[in-house]
Amino acid sequence: MSTPAVQNLIDGNKAYASTFTEGHLALPPSQKYAVVTCMDARIDPKSAFGIPLGAAHIIRNAGGSVRDAFRSLVISQQLLGTTDVLIVKHTGCGMLTFDNAVARSAVAKNKGDAAAKEVEDLEFLTFPDLETEVKNDLEWIKSKNVESGINFTGWIYEVETGKVRKVE
Amino acid sequence: MSTPAVQNLIDGNKAYASTFTEGHLALPPSQKYAVVTCMDARIDPKSAFGIPLGAAHIIRNAGGSVRDAFRSLVISQQLLGTTDVLIVKHTGCGMLTFDNAVARSAVAKNKGDAAAKEVEDLEFLTFPDLETEVKNDLEWIKSKNVESGINFTGWIYEVETGKVRKVE
Repeated sequence: MSTPAVQNLIDGNKAYASTFTEGHLALPPSQKYAVVTCMDARIDPKSAFGIPLGAAHIIRNAGGSVRDAFRSLVISQQLLGTTDVLIVKHTGCGMLTFDNAVARSAVAKNKGDAAAKEVEDLEFLTFPDLETEVKNDLEWIKSKNVESGINFTGWIYEVETGKVRKVE
Repeated sequence: MSTPAVQNLIDGNKAYASTFTEGHLALPPSQKYAVVTCMDARIDPKSAFGIPLGAAHIIRNAGGSVRDAFRSLVISQQLLGTTDVLIVKHTGCGMLTFDNAVARSAVAKNKGDAAAKEVEDLEFLTFPDLETEVKNDLEWIKSKNVESGINFTGWIYEVETGKVRKVE
């Protein structure tokens, strides 16, 4: 079955591959950093955050959570040599709009009891305040011994303006 | 402290925001799909997979693991209405090159015993064969009740050529 998603992939990739010249890039990120940001559809990290192809790992999940990104960050740093991490959350994030109880209720209502059971222990990692959550993430990740020597900074991307600002 | 990562972000974002005209986009993905792919620095999902800004959630982690992406996928589907998922792993993936034991040894050697203790129970989710792992991911995610009604397909992106191919 073809869907709009599959059709985008096939058509978009055909165009991309036809002019592709970056097959020589190495596995380890050339500029030795990682970016953790949200899966939000409105964010284009490469363009909005100025990341050259091959330069940085880009980790994305719901909310841009560093807890959720921990496995990926350890691999990025300990196996592939990155030393710098930008944590970029954003205005209008869906994670500001619900909590565990709402998410679990939605699953039960949409998908039934067996599905609800599959997510009964799942932490959805929502948060009520954006700047506070950037600071919480910075504090949490910096508290890990395995993260010693890594440089972390926190940022907020505004989906309304396309601008980033630093969280101090 | 400014680093190359921070400088890229500041300079790149200034240029991006100066011509930004997409502030009207809505939170739910307009084309109702999600992409799960690897954090690898050589992958530009928007261009290589033909994803218009605002159209799809993009979830990225080490290896493009659907287990690691499970929380994000449930949110994408149950709270934000996506119904289609592309799983795209890639040639030359770092996850083909080590295993849990190697990762834990690297942490112990680089960062010491306290750091090693923090990752002693961490599953790094490495895999020995690319196509098999795409199939394993498809099988695992399709086995969840909460994923009933979602359309999944699996793909491999070739970092050497820029081309994708379907895993059947």
